[in-house]
Amino acid sequence: MARGDGLLNHDLLPGEKGPQDECGVFGVWAPGEEVAKLTYYGLYALQHRGQESAGIATSDGARINVYKDMGLVSQVFDENTLNSMHGQLAVGHCRYSTTGASHWANAQPTLGPTQTGTVALAHNGNLTNSADLADMVTAKQQAEGGKVRGEIAQGNTTDTALVTALLAGAEGQSLEETAMELLPKIQGAFCFVFMNEDTLYAARDPHGVRPLVLGRLNRGWVVASEQPALATVGASFIREIEPGEMIAIDENGVRSTHFAEATPKGCVFEYVYLARPDAAIAGRSVYESRVEMGRQLARENNAEADIVIPVPESGTPAAIGYAEESGIPFTHGFVKNAYVGRTFIQPSQTLRQLGIKLKLNALETVLRGKRVVVVDDSIVRGNTQRAVVRMLREAGAAEVHVKISSPPVKWPCFYGIDFASRAELIANGAAVDEIATSIGADSLAYISEDGMIEATRQPRERLCTACFTGDYPIALPNEERRGKNLLERSNQPGCEPGPDSEFENVS
Amino acid sequence: MARGDGLLNHDLLPGEKGPQDECGVFGVWAPGEEVAKLTYYGLYALQHRGQESAGIATSDGARINVYKDMGLVSQVFDENTLNSMHGQLAVGHCRYSTTGASHWANAQPTLGPTQTGTVALAHNGNLTNSADLADMVTAKQQAEGGKVRGEIAQGNTTDTALVTALLAGAEGQSLEETAMELLPKIQGAFCFVFMNEDTLYAARDPHGVRPLVLGRLNRGWVVASEQPALATVGASFIREIEPGEMIAIDENGVRSTHFAEATPKGCVFEYVYLARPDAAIAGRSVYESRVEMGRQLARENNAEADIVIPVPESGTPAAIGYAEESGIPFTHGFVKNAYVGRTFIQPSQTLRQLGIKLKLNALETVLRGKRVVVVDDSIVRGNTQRAVVRMLREAGAAEVHVKISSPPVKWPCFYGIDFASRAELIANGAAVDEIATSIGADSLAYISEDGMIEATRQPRERLCTACFTGDYPIALPNEERRGKNLLERSNQPGCEPGPDSEFENVS
Amino acid sequence: MARGDGLLNHDLLPGEKGPQDECGVFGVWAPGEEVAKLTYYGLYALQHRGQESAGIATSDGARINVYKDMGLVSQVFDENTLNSMHGQLAVGHCRYSTTGASHWANAQPTLGPTQTGTVALAHNGNLTNSADLADMVTAKQQAEGGKVRGEIAQGNTTDTALVTALLAGAEGQSLEETAMELLPKIQGAFCFVFMNEDTLYAARDPHGVRPLVLGRLNRGWVVASEQPALATVGASFIREIEPGEMIAIDENGVRSTHFAEATPKGCVFEYVYLARPDAAIAGRSVYESRVEMGRQLARENNAEADIVIPVPESGTPAAIGYAEESGIPFTHGFVKNAYVGRTFIQPSQTLRQLGIKLKLNALETVLRGKRVVVVDDSIVRGNTQRAVVRMLREAGAAEVHVKISSPPVKWPCFYGIDFASRAELIANGAAVDEIATSIGADSLAYISEDGMIEATRQPRERLCTACFTGDYPIALPNEERRGKNLLERSNQPGCEPGPDSEFENVS
Amino acid sequence: MARGDGLLNHDLLPGEKGPQDECGVFGVWAPGEEVAKLTYYGLYALQHRGQESAGIATSDGARINVYKDMGLVSQVFDENTLNSMHGQLAVGHCRYSTTGASHWANAQPTLGPTQTGTVALAHNGNLTNSADLADMVTAKQQAEGGKVRGEIAQGNTTDTALVTALLAGAEGQSLEETAMELLPKIQGAFCFVFMNEDTLYAARDPHGVRPLVLGRLNRGWVVASEQPALATVGASFIREIEPGEMIAIDENGVRSTHFAEATPKGCVFEYVYLARPDAAIAGRSVYESRVEMGRQLARENNAEADIVIPVPESGTPAAIGYAEESGIPFTHGFVKNAYVGRTFIQPSQTLRQLGIKLKLNALETVLRGKRVVVVDDSIVRGNTQRAVVRMLREAGAAEVHVKISSPPVKWPCFYGIDFASRAELIANGAAVDEIATSIGADSLAYISEDGMIEATRQPRERLCTACFTGDYPIALPNEERRGKNLLERSNQPGCEPGPDSEFENVS
Repeated sequence: MARGDGLLNHDLLPGEKGPQDECGVFGVWAPGEEVAKLTYYGLYALQHRGQESAGIATSDGARINVYKDMGLVSQVFDENTLNSMHGQLAVGHCRYSTTGASHWANAQPTLGPTQTGTVALAHNGNLTNSADLADMVTAKQQAEGGKVRGEIAQGNTTDTALVTALLAGAEGQSLEETAMELLPKIQGAFCFVFMNEDTLYAARDPHGVRPLVLGRLNRGWVVASEQPALATVGASFIREIEPGEMIAIDENGVRSTHFAEATPKGCVFEYVYLARPDAAIAGRSVYESRVEMGRQLARENNAEADIVIPVPESGTPAAIGYAEESGIPFTHGFVKNAYVGRTFIQPSQTLRQLGIKLKLNALETVLRGKRVVVVDDSIVRGNTQRAVVRMLREAGAAEVHVKISSPPVKWPCFYGIDFASRAELIANGAAVDEIATSIGADSLAYISEDGMIEATRQPRERLCTACFTGDYPIALPNEERRGKNLLERSNQPGCEPGPDSEFENVS
Repeated sequence: MARGDGLLNHDLLPGEKGPQDECGVFGVWAPGEEVAKLTYYGLYALQHRGQESAGIATSDGARINVYKDMGLVSQVFDENTLNSMHGQLAVGHCRYSTTGASHWANAQPTLGPTQTGTVALAHNGNLTNSADLADMVTAKQQAEGGKVRGEIAQGNTTDTALVTALLAGAEGQSLEETAMELLPKIQGAFCFVFMNEDTLYAARDPHGVRPLVLGRLNRGWVVASEQPALATVGASFIREIEPGEMIAIDENGVRSTHFAEATPKGCVFEYVYLARPDAAIAGRSVYESRVEMGRQLARENNAEADIVIPVPESGTPAAIGYAEESGIPFTHGFVKNAYVGRTFIQPSQTLRQLGIKLKLNALETVLRGKRVVVVDDSIVRGNTQRAVVRMLREAGAAEVHVKISSPPVKWPCFYGIDFASRAELIANGAAVDEIATSIGADSLAYISEDGMIEATRQPRERLCTACFTGDYPIALPNEERRGKNLLERSNQPGCEPGPDSEFENVS
Repeated sequence: MARGDGLLNHDLLPGEKGPQDECGVFGVWAPGEEVAKLTYYGLYALQHRGQESAGIATSDGARINVYKDMGLVSQVFDENTLNSMHGQLAVGHCRYSTTGASHWANAQPTLGPTQTGTVALAHNGNLTNSADLADMVTAKQQAEGGKVRGEIAQGNTTDTALVTALLAGAEGQSLEETAMELLPKIQGAFCFVFMNEDTLYAARDPHGVRPLVLGRLNRGWVVASEQPALATVGASFIREIEPGEMIAIDENGVRSTHFAEATPKGCVFEYVYLARPDAAIAGRSVYESRVEMGRQLARENNAEADIVIPVPESGTPAAIGYAEESGIPFTHGFVKNAYVGRTFIQPSQTLRQLGIKLKLNALETVLRGKRVVVVDDSIVRGNTQRAVVRMLREAGAAEVHVKISSPPVKWPCFYGIDFASRAELIANGAAVDEIATSIGADSLAYISEDGMIEATRQPRERLCTACFTGDYPIALPNEERRGKNLLERSNQPGCEPGPDSEFENVS
Repeated sequence: MARGDGLLNHDLLPGEKGPQDECGVFGVWAPGEEVAKLTYYGLYALQHRGQESAGIATSDGARINVYKDMGLVSQVFDENTLNSMHGQLAVGHCRYSTTGASHWANAQPTLGPTQTGTVALAHNGNLTNSADLADMVTAKQQAEGGKVRGEIAQGNTTDTALVTALLAGAEGQSLEETAMELLPKIQGAFCFVFMNEDTLYAARDPHGVRPLVLGRLNRGWVVASEQPALATVGASFIREIEPGEMIAIDENGVRSTHFAEATPKGCVFEYVYLARPDAAIAGRSVYESRVEMGRQLARENNAEADIVIPVPESGTPAAIGYAEESGIPFTHGFVKNAYVGRTFIQPSQTLRQLGIKLKLNALETVLRGKRVVVVDDSIVRGNTQRAVVRMLREAGAAEVHVKISSPPVKWPCFYGIDFASRAELIANGAAVDEIATSIGADSLAYISEDGMIEATRQPRERLCTACFTGDYPIALPNEERRGKNLLERSNQPGCEPGPDSEFENVS
């Protein structure tokens, strides 16, 4: 797979997007600091988690202000906008979402009324009982005389809009009370970062599927999807928000309450691909996990070869581990354009036929005549790998052995990742040797499930491995629809999938 | 140094820009193709050579149209602009230039009159007899009755504007005749890509200091500063434009003439840092050169250490070579934010004091307690390396050994690179051990001059090594001013230095 | 923490001020001596208790004269001013206060009318029933026909102004009678030093939260916040003013009365950090307490290490004790600029980016490769410790173990210390190991609460430990507001917090 | 001795000033930086070398601007003054000088004419052939027709004014040529930092008596008397200026020339007391030297004692070393007022009789009944030690053993330190046991000369030890006056001595 943020991610091969992962959430409580800008930088560090819309809400203690739009964080916000967003606390969000004006409303943070003011909510994850929540909203509206308030009234029907609407609460209820009442009723994977005028809240589902961390500014506190966002804004890591925990941050400091017992099921795919390599999850370095996956891959599936190269950037740590364990020299076989990821002009069909290569360029002098092990983190549809193998062969590689540092992805994720529809998953219809043939490789090997899990240093029972095993730890929505409709397309309202990459030309 | 193009570049350590290298030039002759878009992609592939302004001129056979502005290629052009630029041939340019409205005029391509129409010119390099050229322009104006035409009339007094003005030629002269008469009179390092309404021209100085290549489209021709720009637009590499050669491309194909005898003096710094690693210059892979520099560095200056890491991205190939030769494992010690390089909001002073880190994040779990060899390609001011060493120490590195895959940079470049003023070059006032102290390293070693040259596989006499040796192969402007004035500041009008990087926050 | 008084003081790590402690009060009755100068020197010895404004009032027996301004004692007063302040008795004050003209009025001593003349009052502490006092002032004004006199008429609404206004008393009442009537009605922590034209008074709240001592000059008497102020002016220590005691000093000597029963609750933080090390409180040497805290810390939390160093100056006694108990050699790891604390030019942003270090410089030769125990007295926000750890690592320390000679500060003080808002207290949102991570230490250990108390040699029930335990011995203002509003900000009008230290550059 | 900068110095016992050491010099070449402010901070870090006047000269490339006055750096300069001093390069100076308006002219930098403009010069050291230089000035004036220019015309007759006058040079001579011609003719100990409009120069005498270092800013260069001034301004240490070397810094970088052969004779008293402990001289850490002197002192002269305490701050490192070697516990016996060093109101005679103690306060609880080893760095007049012993005894010490980490100071310094007149040196008229009696100690021991030298890790022949041995490595002025007049008073025009401290009351 190839997406590539930081060392390791961000769409780099056109024609295949990585998993449409999730969203990034960020919150800051820091009176006296420029909270909008801190949120901006925090989202910039979380950009790899969602590149299609970005938003920030700030509160100056009396009023909440929100600004959100389609695009990268750096495209959505300019200096003037940020400067106009005064406040003491803020929440921000970046997400995958379908492009186009009609989906603007789906950008986050989402606003809604509370008994005393406004709530702004940012969400990373995916809920599995949206239907129940929608019923609750309907019931609530009827009880209140049909008044529909908040973004849901404007047609926003996402998970996030439902939760925001329910946070309105009942008369006399504080936001905190409402949240403590509501959170146990929400099923699925969620990390909510929300605030009213004066308090920042963060809540993580009882399974802790997605990461959420607490950090310390010199004079304030930060919550973020991943640890590197803390470093980016100059905050130090304190701890993870615990599964089933809600924290509140205001002038009294950090208060913690648990709305449910923790039954941790951390997403193993965060270790494999989603999180930044400089993140740590449940105390385990993601980079180290990936290097170890590469080592394990070499132990399990060594090959006779001359060089080990990564599919940049996401395959790099595993390739380093593979090379170390196998003794085969590590080198680069591709150069990635440093400006990949910027929005730019799409090649027309005519241009595509010329064979435009905007992302990767193979290093012929490195590859010619060589038996190449090329390491990637995962295979979803197989298109990236097919393009990679073709480029390697065109550059003269004698043999191409593809090594994948995760097992075959066979099952959709209902907890916040949009891999593809199940039918699109190549491993869901082809055996390993068939996939090898399909992508044109001399050989193909995946790491074993055990090997992958061992590399995360987490007990198996504390991980969600559903995309590899089909073993879903959280009840799926409307079980009866499972076999047929729902698995067709894994995209859920929490983080809607975009269409395929705008870069459909493969190389 | 840290700049980062392709695999290896783009400013990533703030506080120090890499050398303000040069410009990128591109030309295409391809009736029936979308030449503006091809040029756009070509410049996108050459973006690392100049990130402060971009421009494209197209000709539809009858009229030349130009569009240029400050900013990255992706910022200057949008779909509409490109769609409006019809044509059969085009030239493009990206360059370093000072920001600000007053310097807009210095963006290229530059337009000027010819006897029959218009010329559009893009230039990479730096001329050393600008004064003579200016005299020629004055003489010409006087001879013609004082009529001043072209951009020079608008106050553009760059090298490029002078050459453009002189390309106006004399009555009855074709552009080609004028060029053949003019080119031998121009001294310095230059790659000109220019065109009139129907013909694309490219010329390279007799020393061939800067690279310039010819490529083949299915139905047309391309010239570009570097080979990877060919691959990017789907063109295949044909050959380099030879030193002292001018080519003309029109409906009759490619014509070649030589305006001067070739005495090659290719810039060794292209191998070290400037060119994309996937480029090849004089037949030698830049990537291979860099890996070999790393191997040689290990042979010359090995260290007892636990890991070898690069300063990403520019130090990566040499680090790979170093690790290979020394047997010390290669790994990553830093993660670079994948979105670095995008224009974004500058942190205010208040935010800087929080310790915001927008570019690099050290991998503590990799570094803690380790003896680290960190490899970079060059040291200019030393600020990047100082920041790198500090980050490594803060992350717990037990020892930090800095290895540099080029010799100390001591002399300014008069041929198109703006390193810094001479006084800013740290090696121009400090010995190696003193630089080690200054950057806080336990040890510092540079490759030898011989070692670097050997790695390029070029004969020493075909290379310009002036920045390392002070041995200038091309006469400097007004030799008598050399000792005092000229060395003051190496930036020359050909590619004026920009202001400091927008990323001034150091880590 | 780093502030530094006496052996151990003065803000030295920018970016974090120590607790905005309290104020210093001083009074002298010594006809025939230069009372203004004696007060000046007394305040100079108490400067560590308040560095933002200073004032002296003198009485020549007939008239009271006051001079006060923002700044250090040495900045506020010059020779001429002091020479012009004749008298037989004087009171003085140094305090934290917000800067700016609008707050000048809050400087002390505060003047007010009495039935027969004028009272000048200086206050160290914080009142918890200001609202009640304000009501009393209003009632009094209404009873007297609305006449508002004294500084309260000029908009000074501090605790001190309220008390001063109430000291006006009723017709026919002496100041002493008024005070004896008023003092039992005042709640909170207070040390009042006040005078009318001929008599010096001093009163300490029944809990004796803040220290107040009586000393003997050759020909007069002195009262001061701390014992070392006595030594400084050549006075010998007599005794502490007792909790609930008021003394009056005039030509008849010292008279003592008790306005309330003593229920001592001495501030434990005076032993930890606030008081000068050469002070003694309740008979216990502060220096000895701190050394003993260090010894106890070593007993409770020893570490394998090569050297023990203090965070200068506040960590020095505990570091000495730690080294003694652990057997690990004591040395210095930092050098502090001797001129720190002087007002000087603030570095501009540009200069800060150069990495200017105005306060501490690490001793590389001492630290390189060493496992370091670094001892500090307390952690408030954690910023100082973070900076300290970073400097130690940059200087090459192999391991950094932080030892703190007080327990985690988790609660605001309502009795005269402005630690920070509760949310700013790092221990109020992070566990010990999380704080260790946040400050970058290999380990972090605090002394136990019992260990700290034992080191003071005071019975636990005679100490206020609220900042560590949340157990507030004196009724808080408007108990019902406690949970929410009052904890918002611990700074109270008695000693308002200043803005950040002028030294914001972190290292 | 007690002076106390940084960890270790600055007048702390009234009644005795430390040696009136020398001056501090600073220079910076950094176009684009705020050179005046950098110089200000540099002088702030060198303040311990001269506290009676301060000055800065800046050049903007065309004109030189100077501002100087009596007082501490922080007193002489305010924000407005510094902001008005624009420039690309600057020199600064802080010095001991007699107080009072009449000596204002002696403050530095000193201005003088050159053939093409102006020179500004700052000097640390003392010349021994001033008479010759004065003759040269006279000769020059006569040759030029009696024209007297520069500060010497205004009655400034210091060494520095003479050198400045001679730097005027002859017609057609550049400043550099003039300096290279002049420097070999100057005898004594000198560090000159000077500049004309565009170039910064630094020269150190062939004996290298005083330290002078070169540092690197991100975009410029710095010279300073001591290394810590580099750290203070964010510069990294490059190397020492070599004895007999002159360097020039301009837009071409750093040029080095040698005007005389190096015969190093570094001042041993820099290691003992003068330099900041965080300095390194000739590669040897001053702090380490002092700790080692303490260890050696313990080896040579151990005592039966209960505690080892320093005379703060200058005795601290040696006390730490003494304690370590002897096994006797280190602690503090004195607390120093943190605000010492600020100019403040002098106590009148009346107040002095009260026994005012403005600097040190003894810790009775530590000292009572204890056999005390008190360590100081040196004894000049003996007054400090006498006061110290008295305070220790008053605090109840059972025995007082004074240990001095340098040998007896018996000889005046002609190379830049003003110890006192020879007659004032107590060791110049009393044997060790007599001094012990004089200061009231139970015993007194000095380190041996060999022990001191060994602790510096310098070869004896590369040190000047004249103040201890009378062995003067540089020819003294007018040898015939030596025995009688000159030794009477060591103060020389280079750094004139001030009168005795304003704080004459001893404790």
